[in-house]
Amino acid sequence: MSDARAIGVFDSGVGGLTVLSALWRALPNESTVYLGDTARVPYGTRSASTVVKYAVNNAHTLAKAAPLKMLVVACNTVSAVALPALAAEMPIPVVGVIVPGASAAVQACQTAKRPNAPVVIFGTSGTIRSGAYPQALAALGHTGSVHLQACPLLVPLVEEGFTDGDLPRLALQHYLAGIPMDAGAAVLGCTHYPLLRPIFRKLLPESIAVVDGAEVTAQEAARLLDLHDLRRQQINTEPKHRVLVSDAPEQMAQLAPRFLGEALRSDGVELVDVEVKS
Amino acid sequence: MSDARAIGVFDSGVGGLTVLSALWRALPNESTVYLGDTARVPYGTRSASTVVKYAVNNAHTLAKAAPLKMLVVACNTVSAVALPALAAEMPIPVVGVIVPGASAAVQACQTAKRPNAPVVIFGTSGTIRSGAYPQALAALGHTGSVHLQACPLLVPLVEEGFTDGDLPRLALQHYLAGIPMDAGAAVLGCTHYPLLRPIFRKLLPESIAVVDGAEVTAQEAARLLDLHDLRRQQINTEPKHRVLVSDAPEQMAQLAPRFLGEALRSDGVELVDVEVKS
Repeated sequence: MSDARAIGVFDSGVGGLTVLSALWRALPNESTVYLGDTARVPYGTRSASTVVKYAVNNAHTLAKAAPLKMLVVACNTVSAVALPALAAEMPIPVVGVIVPGASAAVQACQTAKRPNAPVVIFGTSGTIRSGAYPQALAALGHTGSVHLQACPLLVPLVEEGFTDGDLPRLALQHYLAGIPMDAGAAVLGCTHYPLLRPIFRKLLPESIAVVDGAEVTAQEAARLLDLHDLRRQQINTEPKHRVLVSDAPEQMAQLAPRFLGEALRSDGVELVDVEVKS
Repeated sequence: MSDARAIGVFDSGVGGLTVLSALWRALPNESTVYLGDTARVPYGTRSASTVVKYAVNNAHTLAKAAPLKMLVVACNTVSAVALPALAAEMPIPVVGVIVPGASAAVQACQTAKRPNAPVVIFGTSGTIRSGAYPQALAALGHTGSVHLQACPLLVPLVEEGFTDGDLPRLALQHYLAGIPMDAGAAVLGCTHYPLLRPIFRKLLPESIAVVDGAEVTAQEAARLLDLHDLRRQQINTEPKHRVLVSDAPEQMAQLAPRFLGEALRSDGVELVDVEVKS
């Protein structure tokens, strides 16, 4: 079996491109279609019911743009509240970013033979407040403590292009000051943070595994494609890649290379309509 | 004549408390009622028509809470787009933050006998994009150039409590790198920036006047109270102060002292309903 349908990916904005980039690396033969909902960003301040409505609307917008075989939710806010609604609405596998991150952290603690080691979660204030990571860790049987650290400065730092140098180092030192030094793993639980991974790695003790949420989500997507026999096998043609936004395509085109670590693999950024009313 | 009615002040969130604080200093005998629209923050990403709707709704919410003699819009986004609608809707003087800031910058250039000197505007990306300051400067007859500098890191830095030390200094050095050294004035065109005023002052050449948008807005409010003979003269009783929010009163109570530079002059933060639908 060879399934040429695309993997749909959406985020509230540009950050989810780190997940798209990880998907390209993990699944180089698959076509992708990405939607950045830049008209309604940010999601972190919206009510759960509004986030669910936007998420379902985004999923249908993607499905209208291209036939999909899998939906990857590259947004922590949506992954925290809308996966049940998306799973019910979409007749394809739906993957969020929280469970893969939590699962990789638990595995890292087990690999280090310290299953009860504390796990550190770095995220936006909204993600930290949601309690989604502790819930996922508990559901996975993690019995160690969970240290939650909101890092509100990191998204604006990354969006301003500060991914190395004194500014991000000082900000990270501030956020790392209170974390337990005996932790087994630290999850970069925000789509922007993989761009700061080298500094996180440098400043954290070697005994703490750094879990890149984008990377482990792409690995989970690959595992599910195999499980459901959904891989594209006939690779005599190149995969297709599209990037959609609901507002300001020029801004997405300009920021994209920083988040992808490479040029956009599409002719440009397409503007699509979403229901802007909440 | 003595007018005991309150001055109403609103902002999309906590930042406008710097304007409230400046009003308390400039007008110590006046009662105030402040609304932080924390349920619908941030405004910077909304369409102009939505911002107008929220602004009119906030004005009516304040007028319902207390009899008002003046409305101060302590929000750059609202000041940029909603003053005409508010002026039509409210039968009292309405003061925004943009014209007082622009006006003080023009005056500073004239005082320095350099009326054609460049003016620097620091603000959020939304305020800079709106073009409201160049428009106000042109309407005031300023003929020198205008240098617009968006500073996306400064709001999160202030909200995280970084108002001095290496982090804000490095961020400011970055934003100051490209400004014209022969500028006559620099406007702190965001409600959060007055908390960074000492660092701005230290890093800018002495020949550039630093205009604190909160302070000059309070001075303009005082001038208009005199002009319309609206001051409270009978000061045998203490003025009353109330703080309202549309969401998360505990968070406002916790952040308020940092923005006010003193404790809240009210028994607590009151939760009020606003129309959350856009």
